[in-house]
Amino acid sequence: MKAEIIAVGTELLVGQIVNTNAQFLSQELNAIGVDVYYHTVVGDNPDRIRAAFQIAQHRSDVVLVTGGLGPTQDDITKQILASYIGQEIVMHEPSLHKIEGYFTSRGTVMSENNARQALTVTGAEVLPNDNGMAIGVALSHDRTNWLLLPGPPREMKTMYQRYAGPWIQARFGELKSLYSTTLKFSGIGESRLETELIDLIEGQEDPTIAPYAKDGEVAVRISTKAIDRLEADKRIAPVIAVIRERIGSYLYAESDIPIEQAVVERLKRSSLSLSVAESCTGGLVGELITRIPGCSEVFAGGVISYSAEAKMRQLGVLESTIHTQGTVSAETAEQMASGCRRLFDTDIALSVTGVAGPGDTEGKPPGTVFIAIADRMGTESFALQLAGDREIIRLRAAKAVLYRVWQRLV
Amino acid sequence: MKAEIIAVGTELLVGQIVNTNAQFLSQELNAIGVDVYYHTVVGDNPDRIRAAFQIAQHRSDVVLVTGGLGPTQDDITKQILASYIGQEIVMHEPSLHKIEGYFTSRGTVMSENNARQALTVTGAEVLPNDNGMAIGVALSHDRTNWLLLPGPPREMKTMYQRYAGPWIQARFGELKSLYSTTLKFSGIGESRLETELIDLIEGQEDPTIAPYAKDGEVAVRISTKAIDRLEADKRIAPVIAVIRERIGSYLYAESDIPIEQAVVERLKRSSLSLSVAESCTGGLVGELITRIPGCSEVFAGGVISYSAEAKMRQLGVLESTIHTQGTVSAETAEQMASGCRRLFDTDIALSVTGVAGPGDTEGKPPGTVFIAIADRMGTESFALQLAGDREIIRLRAAKAVLYRVWQRLV
Repeated sequence: MKAEIIAVGTELLVGQIVNTNAQFLSQELNAIGVDVYYHTVVGDNPDRIRAAFQIAQHRSDVVLVTGGLGPTQDDITKQILASYIGQEIVMHEPSLHKIEGYFTSRGTVMSENNARQALTVTGAEVLPNDNGMAIGVALSHDRTNWLLLPGPPREMKTMYQRYAGPWIQARFGELKSLYSTTLKFSGIGESRLETELIDLIEGQEDPTIAPYAKDGEVAVRISTKAIDRLEADKRIAPVIAVIRERIGSYLYAESDIPIEQAVVERLKRSSLSLSVAESCTGGLVGELITRIPGCSEVFAGGVISYSAEAKMRQLGVLESTIHTQGTVSAETAEQMASGCRRLFDTDIALSVTGVAGPGDTEGKPPGTVFIAIADRMGTESFALQLAGDREIIRLRAAKAVLYRVWQRLV
Repeated sequence: MKAEIIAVGTELLVGQIVNTNAQFLSQELNAIGVDVYYHTVVGDNPDRIRAAFQIAQHRSDVVLVTGGLGPTQDDITKQILASYIGQEIVMHEPSLHKIEGYFTSRGTVMSENNARQALTVTGAEVLPNDNGMAIGVALSHDRTNWLLLPGPPREMKTMYQRYAGPWIQARFGELKSLYSTTLKFSGIGESRLETELIDLIEGQEDPTIAPYAKDGEVAVRISTKAIDRLEADKRIAPVIAVIRERIGSYLYAESDIPIEQAVVERLKRSSLSLSVAESCTGGLVGELITRIPGCSEVFAGGVISYSAEAKMRQLGVLESTIHTQGTVSAETAEQMASGCRRLFDTDIALSVTGVAGPGDTEGKPPGTVFIAIADRMGTESFALQLAGDREIIRLRAAKAVLYRVWQRLV
């Protein structure tokens, strides 16, 4: 089973975007035991797309093509494949009606070019697009299996997971699949974590142990090929036990969930409510929490107290504190948290105040951050010194305060 | 001048990393007028690397290869190229001495495998590695020009910028470079925008006109090859003028900046202050605004009024409004905005309340969103019906309300 992933799009060849689609599909295909041998990127050019199809057909059993299914004139992937394998392009009426319905429901009329997105290839299976309009296509021709998927990652991923992946697995998936367990850590850096586990990482064979950092969080993925989840877990469990023994105090989940989700789950379990007071993060903590569907059960809201004025007026931070300690101080963080808790009448309130950069604030360098947690037992603050640019500092500050809330809820 | 970028490395084919090297090199090559026609990724396998080299040789004038220059046994890029073009692998003594010196200066002895990193191909020019040990190689053979660069981005980028790029430019760089101007639009969808410009897009030759959507915003990139920016602008300006005539009312910037930056700039210019009242966006609008360094000059803060309680208590939304109209209603949005404006004493306040999904709220489907703007003239609300999942609805709602503020500031 040799697979190849072809991305069609000049925007990739001019470096405007990076080919994350190939990464996603590679991970997914490897997970079901399909080996990916090549990635190819080609521009929106008929001759070169055709040439890439020809090369792929000779060396691969499964060819996944992303991009070029949209409404515009340079979206020609389906057309080229149809002509390359000697099939026709035809309208898929149910998909066309769905697209028309989308416009009708918005009180507008579908423009002609949008109909292109409902075209399919004769003999192909249609892959529905649950996040957009351009349908996908799956078909076997000679010994090659073609899957055409949309370019926008959100549309592509859902189509792959719901339709294209199962189509492939039904035909070619190995009996053994790759199973993984992801451990998520907070409060520990990636290099420190790696140092703690270095002998395991270097001595690994099966299961494999891969530490990685993503979105301000640190994770370890433990993977093994097995017949089923049960068999995999038998091999993965002892590895988890060893890791727990060493750095278990930083472990917040045995699945790939962000810390905000772990916080929301613990709040729900304990029937506790939360509010947030944010300065340098500017709403990011609230935004992270409200990404979690159902958070309204425990999340009341918060105050973005970006100015000193707002810290005093909305949250009751004392003017004298701001004058003597500054807006970026442990005392200000504590008063923000306790003021927020009173204001929103929640069980717990958190706060963040700091210097995101690029320049200094109050003579304090970027990365100087104070966070605080207020609950019925009182208020506690923590000083952080974070590295990175403005965006990274804000993200790490948000994740750090969420981690402290999570700890408090144990 | 056709260029191709080949990345060698199984870690790319299993999806462990994403091919950002190809993006970087594509940008650099396009900037000096070298067109990139293909990206290829191949694993650490001798036969498949050789096959990829063969395909590349037949279709490209310049082939840049990243990866496979390191010390381990599966680093074989130089060896495969040498055998493919019938040359020998030889030790580059100056580079070997440099590597040995590196270990000596650290009080250790170089292990044997590190010597591999100083190997070169007979007849090739050595490209020094200022950030690592593995040297690069540049050589012309028949009519193909090969450049072998290391895989780690930090090493590759420096080697490209200091040595490989100049090597290419000396031979093939056009005098002309690619210049682009990006127009950013808000309040208009991608397909509607394209319909308005379809004749321009279809009839384009020089400059080229490329519409695209990114992060909830719509952009048009106009590009042309020219001797310098001045010459480019002469050709780009008339295209901008035509686009302005058709959809100028949606155009908020003639550069690639997000709407929140355009808002902050206009607020600064007018010396006006802003506060935000967010429900379904949960802090996202504040987070977007505070991404912009220096926003503290105009941004006071806001309230994340996620619960109905918070809307009433913090922002003064009337209980009767919530009971009769619901939390997702034009009236609630208006009262949130005007309440927020009073609370923060700002010139302008915005508000967002809506259903982000996945389920209905108050019998209203996901995508039902109301936004409002309050200023000294009064309060105005807008009803939106947005498509997409929870994340997209929130992002589009945030961008939509920022666009309305931007319009108000004209």
